[in-house]
Amino acid sequence: MVTRQTLLGGRPTLELEPAKARDRGRLLYLHGGGYVIGSPRTHAGLVGELARRAGLRAVSVDYRLAPEHPFPAAVDDGLAAYRELLAAGTAPQDLVMAGDSAGGGLVIATLLAAREAGLPQPAAVVVFSPWADLTLAGATIRSKEGADPIFTEADLRAYADLYVGAGDRAHPLVSPVFADLAGLPPLLVQAGANELLLDDAVRLAARAGADDVEVTLEVGSGLPHVFQHHYGLLGEADAALDRAARFLTAHLGTEHPAADRPEPVR
Amino acid sequence: MVTRQTLLGGRPTLELEPAKARDRGRLLYLHGGGYVIGSPRTHAGLVGELARRAGLRAVSVDYRLAPEHPFPAAVDDGLAAYRELLAAGTAPQDLVMAGDSAGGGLVIATLLAAREAGLPQPAAVVVFSPWADLTLAGATIRSKEGADPIFTEADLRAYADLYVGAGDRAHPLVSPVFADLAGLPPLLVQAGANELLLDDAVRLAARAGADDVEVTLEVGSGLPHVFQHHYGLLGEADAALDRAARFLTAHLGTEHPAADRPEPVR
Repeated sequence: MVTRQTLLGGRPTLELEPAKARDRGRLLYLHGGGYVIGSPRTHAGLVGELARRAGLRAVSVDYRLAPEHPFPAAVDDGLAAYRELLAAGTAPQDLVMAGDSAGGGLVIATLLAAREAGLPQPAAVVVFSPWADLTLAGATIRSKEGADPIFTEADLRAYADLYVGAGDRAHPLVSPVFADLAGLPPLLVQAGANELLLDDAVRLAARAGADDVEVTLEVGSGLPHVFQHHYGLLGEADAALDRAARFLTAHLGTEHPAADRPEPVR
Repeated sequence: MVTRQTLLGGRPTLELEPAKARDRGRLLYLHGGGYVIGSPRTHAGLVGELARRAGLRAVSVDYRLAPEHPFPAAVDDGLAAYRELLAAGTAPQDLVMAGDSAGGGLVIATLLAAREAGLPQPAAVVVFSPWADLTLAGATIRSKEGADPIFTEADLRAYADLYVGAGDRAHPLVSPVFADLAGLPPLLVQAGANELLLDDAVRLAARAGADDVEVTLEVGSGLPHVFQHHYGLLGEADAALDRAARFLTAHLGTEHPAADRPEPVR
């Protein structure tokens, strides 16, 4: 894996190039961390594993974080990165996106912003344990309390406070479970059964299906938030990353043109 | 495909044996038709395709139908068939189940009845467009009206009237979206985005995940109820049946023993 630092959409960005990379095809990754912590460096292992299994060169963007840069800074940076990849000549059908936790929600928000901007959609998208509802309305935020080794509801609330403050937490670019997802590309959602955010994953998939988006939801029994981090140690993590890589590459080359009448979402 | 008529759990049953069948492994199939219509004969094509792709011998049970035989006759017949397969020496880890529409709900009800009876669970289960809520509370029963080429809400209500009458439509063996699904084996749920019952599929998967069952939900864009019937004509149907067959065979050999303390459900 060769890594190098670059800029994308004006933000520092980590490029990761696996030894056996396809000539075409590019993965745009947005890391998790509650919109407050994390970086391409903290997620280099996970992104590298996904890139290696897919045989895709990847770019992982160091988008601006709260509280210094609250919503919509992260979405603006995601969209700027996506726009620059297209402007630099990457065909949308050669482009796939992925993200985890807050980065998973941010990937969906970026696709919605791209749709609103009249840009074509990428070929496919994968989200690991997406945080897709900052109103914290998911039933599992209560029912999985104690089962989740990563988060408490208070943690989530603190992150949401820093990212959205007094803003509208049900805004579709903050909480895409409330968005119209029509026109998004094929979507794979993976989550663990032992996480507060299980219901975010379920409702994102439900919303996608209701909006006629091709969607697959995979829930792994007994698994925690973003269990894919534990590749190499946990068989389920390796299997999930392999399925994610196959999903992304199976859709490479599929066009999802800009909608005729994009729906305003902000 | 060799077919022959037999009896299983006291009911007429169609056996289907593909040309290249594994020595071990058996598929128990329960057909759809709103608990009122349909038979192993109407579904022989679909079951045969799934059996052929999985390389599994299949048995498709002619369970009793309403209105002559309302709930719980169908569940009793499903459980009797499952029990006889085990009693005849099929190991539970060599057994998988599948069903479509009402048969998909009935498969889940049969697994719940088996759990309550202290029987081990099969290795895996696949349901196509399951009818899993006879209270008709699914949001897509209204939101997909007009998009669904198969059903109207009135059709579903008529079937529910005939099957349950004045009984409790929220009973977990009638509407497994309201059941505790803990202890069920890995579950694959497939549905079309253009069907009234999309939300039944989504909520069944949500319930399974919440109860720590390994579950995959696949929603196909633009597809109708039990689109798998259109194998050979519709690429998505062939692909879905291939994925269903791989899911079933990938889990063969996995043990899911009887729970220590089965939860009463009826």
